[in-house]
Amino acid sequence: MNNFVYDIPTKVYFGENQLGNLGVELSKYGKRVLLTYGGGSIKKIGLYDKIVEEIKKAGLELYELSGIAPNPRVSSVNAGADICKRENIDVLLAVGGGSVLDCTKYIGAAAYYEGDAWDISLQKTPVERCLPIITVLTLAATGSEMDAGGVISNPETIDKIGLLFPVMQPKVSFLDPTATYTVNKFHTACGAADIISHVLEVYFNMDQDLYMLDTVMEGLIKTVIKYTPVALEEPDNYEARANLMWTSSWAINGFINGGKRQAWSCHPMEHELSAFYDITHGLGLAILTPRWMEYTLNEKTVSKFYQFGVNVFEIDGSLPQIEVAKKSIGLLKKFFFETLGLQSTLTEIGIDETNFKSMAKKAETLGSTKYAFQPLAAEDIENIFRMCL
Amino acid sequence: MNNFVYDIPTKVYFGENQLGNLGVELSKYGKRVLLTYGGGSIKKIGLYDKIVEEIKKAGLELYELSGIAPNPRVSSVNAGADICKRENIDVLLAVGGGSVLDCTKYIGAAAYYEGDAWDISLQKTPVERCLPIITVLTLAATGSEMDAGGVISNPETIDKIGLLFPVMQPKVSFLDPTATYTVNKFHTACGAADIISHVLEVYFNMDQDLYMLDTVMEGLIKTVIKYTPVALEEPDNYEARANLMWTSSWAINGFINGGKRQAWSCHPMEHELSAFYDITHGLGLAILTPRWMEYTLNEKTVSKFYQFGVNVFEIDGSLPQIEVAKKSIGLLKKFFFETLGLQSTLTEIGIDETNFKSMAKKAETLGSTKYAFQPLAAEDIENIFRMCL
Repeated sequence: MNNFVYDIPTKVYFGENQLGNLGVELSKYGKRVLLTYGGGSIKKIGLYDKIVEEIKKAGLELYELSGIAPNPRVSSVNAGADICKRENIDVLLAVGGGSVLDCTKYIGAAAYYEGDAWDISLQKTPVERCLPIITVLTLAATGSEMDAGGVISNPETIDKIGLLFPVMQPKVSFLDPTATYTVNKFHTACGAADIISHVLEVYFNMDQDLYMLDTVMEGLIKTVIKYTPVALEEPDNYEARANLMWTSSWAINGFINGGKRQAWSCHPMEHELSAFYDITHGLGLAILTPRWMEYTLNEKTVSKFYQFGVNVFEIDGSLPQIEVAKKSIGLLKKFFFETLGLQSTLTEIGIDETNFKSMAKKAETLGSTKYAFQPLAAEDIENIFRMCL
Repeated sequence: MNNFVYDIPTKVYFGENQLGNLGVELSKYGKRVLLTYGGGSIKKIGLYDKIVEEIKKAGLELYELSGIAPNPRVSSVNAGADICKRENIDVLLAVGGGSVLDCTKYIGAAAYYEGDAWDISLQKTPVERCLPIITVLTLAATGSEMDAGGVISNPETIDKIGLLFPVMQPKVSFLDPTATYTVNKFHTACGAADIISHVLEVYFNMDQDLYMLDTVMEGLIKTVIKYTPVALEEPDNYEARANLMWTSSWAINGFINGGKRQAWSCHPMEHELSAFYDITHGLGLAILTPRWMEYTLNEKTVSKFYQFGVNVFEIDGSLPQIEVAKKSIGLLKKFFFETLGLQSTLTEIGIDETNFKSMAKKAETLGSTKYAFQPLAAEDIENIFRMCL
């Protein structure tokens, strides 16, 4: 069992009508606020107005960067960093889903860097400082609201790179389940797949782990399986949205990791799909994950699949391990492709094998998948991509 | 579902040989360190020497307060506060179990107060400042290493009062499972009962809760049930000690609370037992908890007991709810009194009904048990005490 350091200092206001605390929290870090957001959905749901009102009430100065896209681009990071430098921004306020939050984290770091922000992704410059970040979340998926990571895309080089720097950890996050009521079925489903993937990337590990954390992980997945169908059926079901929202944070804030040090598998593969085809991250994960499970299931790994099947899907534990394992993969497929209604193959979303080889090579390099649960060389990744056709 | 604020900023170094980080962490808060500990067991296990070495290596000045007793006394708080004022202490280093940690939290607050520290327990003075606290834990039980609470006794008034002040939250805690290898069977068992009680005080709640947190709580209890027998059998089993240690922190650091606002039940009752008879907290909880469950099981509450029985003890869910509920209480008794070998009645530990009436009255007042899961007036508490004879 490996040692670890637990350090998740983000303060969270969870629930409805908590934005009355926004002004106080922002004011702790200064006067000049850069509000970052995406395509304007926060205006439609009235969130923008509420936030601007709180900022004005607190006597703060407001600057804005809008138009941050899904799979956020390094161009947005550079644009935001320019504003920070020009306007002497004190604190960043990211309002949106994971894309806006991730982009804002990089803006906070790039504000202290003179070159192209892509250098941060290429690790050409250390990230030792970051402007303080406060977030208001509108999508339960990436967990960016409570972790120090982010993923940025560079369309010019067809790269999508995820990194984690402790200084990027949000200081405060506002999680209001009602802010996710208007998330459509597709993005609710993709968010669910993303949350489950975050847990599975950690859960599937053959190291001697803390059993206690395994029970937590199984509970998180069961929560997503229980409540996503409710949220799809009744988008304004508070209980469902609340469970999904808090689960999204805990699936990736670091708590479940304990001392596990292995590399992730499906995320590096999916980042290539998104980089090449700009698809929604959670959809890519839903298509990839069951195939990755099929590919990595073997004599050495079967016991973990068995545990997953018995504890998450309540499959009869008296069945042979391999049978439980296969059933569990089948049930996960059923959940993603029938219950959530997500497309089940790359073919269905218009992706063919054209770029598999180069994507696999990049995934292997950027994701260190050689060190994963079941080590994956580029060839293995290519095989898994093919299984998704 | 109620709103809540999540704010647990304690940084944790988990695992063996992490004390190399102690000097750096202490130095963040100043030069003058007050080391607080109990009866000297930390000297026997070599922990004291290691800590002193790290403090010297970091060039810090060391002051000491030893002799903090189980059920720590306000006299120790006053003694510690005097040292802090006299020596201009910058940071407190609590090394021990919950008693040392709780006492140190109050020392940190009393250092800024001119009167008797008992005024803090009586809430005669607000606690707005506290010296920074770093802890090195030697017992998996109270969770004081990661929460802002503490319990202090006043033998003169036969009072034991628990309170929570955010400023008392430890900045950093060092959790080394090997530091608990020498904890004897009795205290290991009492620690386990304490952890389970912390979870049950929150779990038994009829509000609409976050299901996700219920799954976490069930996992925490299952962890204690799985690993305490291992630790009793093999005191130096790292896996068992590690699971118990990390579970103790998460059972009471606030995470599992979500928005639940109800008062606790067994803790206020047990605090009276400890105040009057100076017994070990976890033992009192083990005796009280199953009787409290029997007393509070009724038509209104049975569904929660059913959930507990099915999800924690894996009792057949097709049985009638009341049967599952009763079985679950029976299994918890079996765990406390057979598996852990704890004494099962107050009579066995020399407590009779003499003080039941006054203890019950105090528990009702100090514990706000009228607002608990099943509201408990003094008369109810007296009945539960009698069930423990």
